[in-house]
Amino acid sequence: MKRESRLVRWIWWAVVVTALFLLGFCIGWFSKRSKATANNHKTSSKYLVEFLDEMQPDLIRDHLRKFTRLPHLAGTEQNLKYAEEIMKEWRDFGLDSVEMVPYDILLSYPNKSQPNYISIVDHSGKEVFNTSLAEPVPQGYEDVSNIVPPYSAYSPKGHPEGDLVYVNYGRTEDFLQLEREMNVSVTGKIVIVRYGKIFRGNKVKNAMSAGAKGVIMFSDPADYWAAGVKPYPDGWNLPGGGAQRGNVLNLNGAGDPLTPGYPAKEYTYRLNPEEGVGLPKIPVHPIGFHDAIHLLKNMGGQIPPNNWKGALNVSYKTGPGFTEDFKSQKVRMNIYSNRQVSRIYNVIGKIRGALEPDRYVILGGHRDAWVFGGIDPMSGAAVVHETVRSAGKLLRKGWRPRRTVVFASWDAEEFGLLGSTEWAEDNARLLQERAVAYINADSAIEGMYTLRVDCTPSLHTLVYDLTKQISSPEEGEEGVSLYESWHKRDNWTNDRDAPRISKLGSGSDFEAYFIRLGIAAGRARYTKNKKTERYSSYPVYHSVYETFEIVERFYDPTFRRLRAVAQVRGGLIFLLADSQVLPLDANEYADSLRKYADSIAHLAQTHTELMETYKVSFESLFSAVKNFTNAAKGFHERLQTLNIEDPLQVRIMNDQLMYLERAFIDPLGLPGRPFYRHVIFAPSSHNKYAGESFPGIYDALFDIENSADPEKAWREVKRQISIAAFTVHAAAMTLTPPA
Amino acid sequence: MKRESRLVRWIWWAVVVTALFLLGFCIGWFSKRSKATANNHKTSSKYLVEFLDEMQPDLIRDHLRKFTRLPHLAGTEQNLKYAEEIMKEWRDFGLDSVEMVPYDILLSYPNKSQPNYISIVDHSGKEVFNTSLAEPVPQGYEDVSNIVPPYSAYSPKGHPEGDLVYVNYGRTEDFLQLEREMNVSVTGKIVIVRYGKIFRGNKVKNAMSAGAKGVIMFSDPADYWAAGVKPYPDGWNLPGGGAQRGNVLNLNGAGDPLTPGYPAKEYTYRLNPEEGVGLPKIPVHPIGFHDAIHLLKNMGGQIPPNNWKGALNVSYKTGPGFTEDFKSQKVRMNIYSNRQVSRIYNVIGKIRGALEPDRYVILGGHRDAWVFGGIDPMSGAAVVHETVRSAGKLLRKGWRPRRTVVFASWDAEEFGLLGSTEWAEDNARLLQERAVAYINADSAIEGMYTLRVDCTPSLHTLVYDLTKQISSPEEGEEGVSLYESWHKRDNWTNDRDAPRISKLGSGSDFEAYFIRLGIAAGRARYTKNKKTERYSSYPVYHSVYETFEIVERFYDPTFRRLRAVAQVRGGLIFLLADSQVLPLDANEYADSLRKYADSIAHLAQTHTELMETYKVSFESLFSAVKNFTNAAKGFHERLQTLNIEDPLQVRIMNDQLMYLERAFIDPLGLPGRPFYRHVIFAPSSHNKYAGESFPGIYDALFDIENSADPEKAWREVKRQISIAAFTVHAAAMTLTPPA
Repeated sequence: MKRESRLVRWIWWAVVVTALFLLGFCIGWFSKRSKATANNHKTSSKYLVEFLDEMQPDLIRDHLRKFTRLPHLAGTEQNLKYAEEIMKEWRDFGLDSVEMVPYDILLSYPNKSQPNYISIVDHSGKEVFNTSLAEPVPQGYEDVSNIVPPYSAYSPKGHPEGDLVYVNYGRTEDFLQLEREMNVSVTGKIVIVRYGKIFRGNKVKNAMSAGAKGVIMFSDPADYWAAGVKPYPDGWNLPGGGAQRGNVLNLNGAGDPLTPGYPAKEYTYRLNPEEGVGLPKIPVHPIGFHDAIHLLKNMGGQIPPNNWKGALNVSYKTGPGFTEDFKSQKVRMNIYSNRQVSRIYNVIGKIRGALEPDRYVILGGHRDAWVFGGIDPMSGAAVVHETVRSAGKLLRKGWRPRRTVVFASWDAEEFGLLGSTEWAEDNARLLQERAVAYINADSAIEGMYTLRVDCTPSLHTLVYDLTKQISSPEEGEEGVSLYESWHKRDNWTNDRDAPRISKLGSGSDFEAYFIRLGIAAGRARYTKNKKTERYSSYPVYHSVYETFEIVERFYDPTFRRLRAVAQVRGGLIFLLADSQVLPLDANEYADSLRKYADSIAHLAQTHTELMETYKVSFESLFSAVKNFTNAAKGFHERLQTLNIEDPLQVRIMNDQLMYLERAFIDPLGLPGRPFYRHVIFAPSSHNKYAGESFPGIYDALFDIENSADPEKAWREVKRQISIAAFTVHAAAMTLTPPA
Repeated sequence: MKRESRLVRWIWWAVVVTALFLLGFCIGWFSKRSKATANNHKTSSKYLVEFLDEMQPDLIRDHLRKFTRLPHLAGTEQNLKYAEEIMKEWRDFGLDSVEMVPYDILLSYPNKSQPNYISIVDHSGKEVFNTSLAEPVPQGYEDVSNIVPPYSAYSPKGHPEGDLVYVNYGRTEDFLQLEREMNVSVTGKIVIVRYGKIFRGNKVKNAMSAGAKGVIMFSDPADYWAAGVKPYPDGWNLPGGGAQRGNVLNLNGAGDPLTPGYPAKEYTYRLNPEEGVGLPKIPVHPIGFHDAIHLLKNMGGQIPPNNWKGALNVSYKTGPGFTEDFKSQKVRMNIYSNRQVSRIYNVIGKIRGALEPDRYVILGGHRDAWVFGGIDPMSGAAVVHETVRSAGKLLRKGWRPRRTVVFASWDAEEFGLLGSTEWAEDNARLLQERAVAYINADSAIEGMYTLRVDCTPSLHTLVYDLTKQISSPEEGEEGVSLYESWHKRDNWTNDRDAPRISKLGSGSDFEAYFIRLGIAAGRARYTKNKKTERYSSYPVYHSVYETFEIVERFYDPTFRRLRAVAQVRGGLIFLLADSQVLPLDANEYADSLRKYADSIAHLAQTHTELMETYKVSFESLFSAVKNFTNAAKGFHERLQTLNIEDPLQVRIMNDQLMYLERAFIDPLGLPGRPFYRHVIFAPSSHNKYAGESFPGIYDALFDIENSADPEKAWREVKRQISIAAFTVHAAAMTLTPPA
């Protein structure tokens, strides 16, 4: 018995010892989780809700108010002051680091002592009419100095004098129509062109190619006037004395005209000013429609087709020159603007990633404005500011994103996306290897209707998922999600039953990131109803009437629309930075590629016979898209079975997702445009604003019409199809198992 | 007492329980190591020793014997057969996958029914002398068919007839001297040029620029004859009937001339044959020195300076044309070669990485040979074959490298590095994002003296460490390491007390990987004594006399030199693929950059006054190098404190090491050479073989001498200094903490 009890006791002992040891072992084993899952999905979603909820309409209003009191053109002291304030506040909000990054780039300003204007002169050279030297200043801003008058940035100095020719929107097709159908030559003439449809720089380029010696741009009410809306300050339409500023460069992504491809630092080699990239060689000047009437009303020549006619009470005759009665009158441009190298300042703020500090998610938007920037860009900058504040708050609560978040306040966007492009050039290697996504934050509102998102296809799913978690800002839509509200207003009817998402074009700071470097990118803002509101951008665009008040009184009185935009932009950044597996969708890219391939092949079908003659086929492209579709499908299937406990395996698949967009970059660039390197998305050569899919093929097809050597032109189409097919195949390869 | 004893007992119990729990916990905690350290350093070194020891001289001999029996020119059936054999054997050796990767590229062959030759014709057009149609075939190979006679690949067809001009080595400076000092014009003449000093394609380019209508190349004994050595088969010198084959392209890294920038697949767009990149426009043909004597002996004109004189018993007069007695005789070239698109085959074998399958370490060398390829390339291919065999053996023992290893047997290297370049183009995105290093495996031996290594600076330390673990192959050096043996024979005297390592030039398959893509690269072979052996490459280079026997009888009778080369190449691959932390050294890069900056600034000092006139300074470059040096130092200090248990932290720092070389790539390429993109290393425009540091600056300085517009020429120097400074700064940035 004693023995037995001893044995029992020993057994009991052994069991306890073993049990305790095992317990300890198990706790030790399981408590040592890989860091990779430290921020687990639930915690992250909780933080997302807090992050979005923290953003407040009233604070966005305050930010907007604060940064729109004074004009802050790029290169001016006021824009530096705002940069310093933003830097200070971002630090106070709690970012890990905030720095000011300067560059010395070529800017362009009117001469303060010799204003630019356009005259009608009589036979003796006497000025019988002069355009206004400035816009009437809106109420409350009468004492503000440094309001730059409307001008075309980078116009050379000059005083061309001659007859006017009206060239409609100044598109390639407008000039062709003028030359071929109306037999009007533009050579040696001054052209008058209405704003709209295409980027103003393309208008100037076309005018130069056609031989014009000067360009006058005007805002026609047909393009800048919403029906039933009063001019500012009683409504949000453009007054007749208002005019649209803007640069007239053709940079094609080069950044600073004097330092293409390299950041404009102190030691950087600069081209001679006359060699600068994309600089117009003829004087250019913008006017409002009150002034335009005077130039147009006496024009002679032919009556153009109806689609050349705007909404002014004039005949829109093409010219050249005035009618018989005014034959002796000529038009003279008086342009005295200067180009000068000036210092600009980006503000760069960072939140260091907890686990993958070498993965960057970027939210960038510009700060420089033509005048006050009430809409462009400060509605966007205010939204970024609130996003930074909310992120800072979260940091204080202990949150830290898995990846690094970069916030950027760009300078000199209005001068050709210069601040953002110089920084991209400066950091190209880091961005190429480490950037996950770039979300753009220009104007957050251009209408009062619904959300507008333009993004790369791999972000579609994330945008939909996120907008389902955000509330509609519209009155009477309590409890309705932004997704539903948006879906109802802008369904992607032909393609799918979901809110419409568009391709990225250009014309804002995402360009260098997306089109040059191949970083997944997107933008979001509140917009107008495209179906009923046909004007370009928004009526007061780039005028002095872009004030704080126009937003507060008309566009977003409750600032809830801006809050919704902040939540979309911020939410995208949050999820891209904090999700363990990157929320990028290769299957969506495959779907989009198929649509684009169908669409470009369809475009070519107008030339079926020639395609047979020259043996042009889209088969290789279709086959590549099929290959890509399978690779994407396979990838996402494997992603389902990923062991998310294994940090290396997670990183490897995330890298594949991150580098997917990069795979569409062709280091050789598009023909003649070395800085536009994205084979799937770039503006066409004919309009910087519009994003074309397969832009190389698109441009080659466009040129078919005008080519003197059709065989050569078709060979270029074939070459572009081959490049597109190869690029899609190469992108497919990046999605297959790495070995 | 009872109470007390109970208490004691409870305390004792509590201690035991706690101790047991803690013991369990600790074991649990520490036994769960991250996978990252699964292959720990010790295991890896043990495997390295086994890997190196497994390589056997006799087997290298067998591989060499096997693959040199028949001519295997690129695009021929025999070269495909060897590819198939290699594929099969690599599979048998145990690689995870082996595939054949074909491309359809432009090749060039003599016309089988109309041989190429050069004649001296008399006044009636009668051929009074003809060069030989083939080399005398070496003993034992008399019955072999398909020995391609000496020719200059890609020469156009043509029959130029005229006077000869002797142009020495055909360097830029030779043509300048001829024109400026000797007043001899080459326009409309046929030039006769000796092989050596620079790449033959550069000679042809220079001749074309000078206006020549044909080029005859010959091997002068001064450049292809070792003192005291008999011609093959009694020794390893070039017989008088032997001649050097070779392509005469100026591709500058473009790959297939018809598909620059893109892989030559079936669907790929091809340039019209006349638009092909780098194709010579005038006929070119190579001859041996027996034939050369006949062309040279009667030449008239001036007696050139002594450094223009070779070792033949002729006067080396410049011409033009023959002496008075032979005035009526002309030289006629008869070239009938064809260019044709043909299929080539790379063989690609892989070992999947255990932990980081998406990191690639590549060992590649070509298989195609001009004839048998006894030295070039099969001495290298045999070494790769043995490396693959040894790796397969290790795999069977349970080893698997951390990263993926890729073995490549390239085709069509002799035609302009085409197989390797097409594959690089095909896989550019994967390589750019995932390739850790590329080790080249062309000819493994070109002399009997010591080791020769050319590599990127970040590999210096690894090469030294590794060669200390390899035995000297030299007789009488038992127990001496390869490092010591090499150090003794080729000390880097001026710079440091260590074996000399040189810069990578071009002329072999690493080019696309290193100079276009920016992948750390190196090559190793056995070489001659540079100080005493002044001939170019090795005497029988690209002749029919490159047989198995020349290696077995003269270069490496024991095959221990080839084994040592196998161990160096294989060891590099092993350590790059299996080390937890990448064995790349940024500090070495910093040291080298400093030397290069000093050296290029020194080169410019010949123009001190002009530099002041045009305000040219190297300060920005020196400052960038200083910045890089600090960044490298900081990086390696942080690397010391890296937590190697954290797989993400290890990966992040390894990524910084991997992408360091990439950071030196300028996407815009060097001026006029879009596929040469490495700012630190590229061949100069004047000689593809020689690697220049800061090639952009080097070429700009070279052009100073010849420029008609010195201001413009100096501006280009400034621009290149600025680009170099920026690139070095940018590379420094990649080494700083990522956020």
